[in-house]
Amino acid sequence: MHELPATIRWEGGVDGQLVLLDQTKLPTAVEFLNCRTTEDVWQAIKRLSVRGAPAIGIAAAYGVCLSLKHNGDSRTATRAELLTAMTQACDHLATSRPTAVNLFWALDRMRKVAAESNAVTSAELSEELLAEAHRICEEDRRMSAAIAKHGADLLSELPPGAGILTHCNSGALVSSGEGTALAMVFELHRRGRQPHVWVDESRPLLQGARLTAWELTVREIPCTLICDSAAAQVMREGRVQAVVTGADRIAASGDVANKIGTYAVAMLARQHGIPFYVAAPTSTFDLQTASGSDILIEERAAAEVTHAFGHQTAPAGTVVYNPAFDVTPAELVTAIITERGVVAPVNASTVANLMPSVQEFR
Amino acid sequence: MHELPATIRWEGGVDGQLVLLDQTKLPTAVEFLNCRTTEDVWQAIKRLSVRGAPAIGIAAAYGVCLSLKHNGDSRTATRAELLTAMTQACDHLATSRPTAVNLFWALDRMRKVAAESNAVTSAELSEELLAEAHRICEEDRRMSAAIAKHGADLLSELPPGAGILTHCNSGALVSSGEGTALAMVFELHRRGRQPHVWVDESRPLLQGARLTAWELTVREIPCTLICDSAAAQVMREGRVQAVVTGADRIAASGDVANKIGTYAVAMLARQHGIPFYVAAPTSTFDLQTASGSDILIEERAAAEVTHAFGHQTAPAGTVVYNPAFDVTPAELVTAIITERGVVAPVNASTVANLMPSVQEFR
Repeated sequence: MHELPATIRWEGGVDGQLVLLDQTKLPTAVEFLNCRTTEDVWQAIKRLSVRGAPAIGIAAAYGVCLSLKHNGDSRTATRAELLTAMTQACDHLATSRPTAVNLFWALDRMRKVAAESNAVTSAELSEELLAEAHRICEEDRRMSAAIAKHGADLLSELPPGAGILTHCNSGALVSSGEGTALAMVFELHRRGRQPHVWVDESRPLLQGARLTAWELTVREIPCTLICDSAAAQVMREGRVQAVVTGADRIAASGDVANKIGTYAVAMLARQHGIPFYVAAPTSTFDLQTASGSDILIEERAAAEVTHAFGHQTAPAGTVVYNPAFDVTPAELVTAIITERGVVAPVNASTVANLMPSVQEFR
Repeated sequence: MHELPATIRWEGGVDGQLVLLDQTKLPTAVEFLNCRTTEDVWQAIKRLSVRGAPAIGIAAAYGVCLSLKHNGDSRTATRAELLTAMTQACDHLATSRPTAVNLFWALDRMRKVAAESNAVTSAELSEELLAEAHRICEEDRRMSAAIAKHGADLLSELPPGAGILTHCNSGALVSSGEGTALAMVFELHRRGRQPHVWVDESRPLLQGARLTAWELTVREIPCTLICDSAAAQVMREGRVQAVVTGADRIAASGDVANKIGTYAVAMLARQHGIPFYVAAPTSTFDLQTASGSDILIEERAAAEVTHAFGHQTAPAGTVVYNPAFDVTPAELVTAIITERGVVAPVNASTVANLMPSVQEFR
């Protein structure tokens, strides 16, 4: 296996910078993006240089730290100035993408640290905020490892060599660890269970083709790339024994918002008698959102559909509907794998049982 | 409405040429391809410059005529020479694409004319073969018009302004007339029923985005382009009242082979309580094929998936599964609209009832 580049890492101390693996360049180039301002991070999230619910949360937390540095020297700015700068940064970062709840969850943690801080000097406060961002990053690594373990335990019930279909990307590129749904597959592979992964290309931005196929290829895990519309045929041919995906937000009802196309895959899996698993840290649950219909779904630019990678593929002026996400109702989800264990069946009651104790884990 | 270019037309007499609208260039350019040899037609079918079951049949019939011209001067070649040339042409054209049965149906008609001909001279035989190709072309125009009428009668039960989702392209570009499934929508539009068409882009080659959106745009019929994976979401939002598609082959059981993704759309339509209609001339029925599992499904090049329009979008060496078609079981098809009327429910018995009398229509 080649050595894998870090998806997201902080370089230096309070006056450091955020270094992101630029996911818009994969799979043909491995390039890094140095973010030195909050605006750099906002842009990176917006244009999907960094993406995936956990990674967006981590990037946002570090984005807050960058606001402190660039509003004057953090060692001389007043505590009040720092608080103003970080509040503005949080408000701004919150506008980058509306659906992944980890963004808001991470920003809330940063605000809370500032609000509850006993720091007297601005330097102390800056250190505390950076420490919190590091904690969010490190916790994500541990959550990812725990999800991988719980998920692989569950998937070990499948026969060796089983086909596992996935949609979009939920591997090391969405996380400071190995990710969510793909992390389970990586662990299953390490256990010698020889999974074969069916990769939905995931239009419009092809995160499956560009990112998931890349992650599997560099790890030498067998996979086959398909168009999204071929998933049903592959299921019908008996080649898929489980479907795994990540999540961008999970409502109190257990309804799951994830990459557009997930709902179709879940429904098709149900019709073919195939279990459909969602993997997500508890930071992806949003108990303030009662059900899937309350989740704001981001609509993205028409050009993602009409101009695939610079080439015009639809008549000029074509009207496009390009929702970035859809909602899979809880009843189509066989189980949700979290860092605390497996939630099954998925409904408001089992989600409520999972969540009260989450704080203890952190 | 702009004047529309002919999808397929013969220019000249027995020594003429076949002129195809080059569908690989749409929607950004309207260019024509002059086919002067059988090989030109084989290539045009293979690379999808002409596509769609009825159009492939027509092109193949004219492709046979081109074999006569190019095996010596048809006015002096012997009748036996002509028969040899045309048999070779039929055998070659039959290898261009395996799934659309209209190809084989049209070639069989050409063979039959030659076998049953009373022509004494080769010139007479050439004229008879060209006349048969013209008949296939003209019949297709009439079949298309009849399908449009029957289909629009059926779809008139929908409320005005209804959403109609379609997959791939089944309009004037698959036919010498207005096509199959889209022809019904065009007729519904002419009747003032204001259909709104949801266009699946239809990966990998985007026939929906490139061709269907173009056909609707030039006819000024409202439409919205979506990624294939968004169809389920659009259905869930209540925006689709019917799904219509064409077909490449229909087995005796009523199982329908059509563009990859059709099976998923049919299954999702059923789950959302939306009728799923298939439109096809009787020449698309293949009673020699008992059921869908007996239909040979063409697999196409990996590059269609990994190199979207010249841009590499998957890691080098990625394994791809790229079936061009899938099979929708008869039980998911609400009705099949043919030139002879509507078949519903769809099963072996109703298909058998439709087919015996087909010869009378021709």
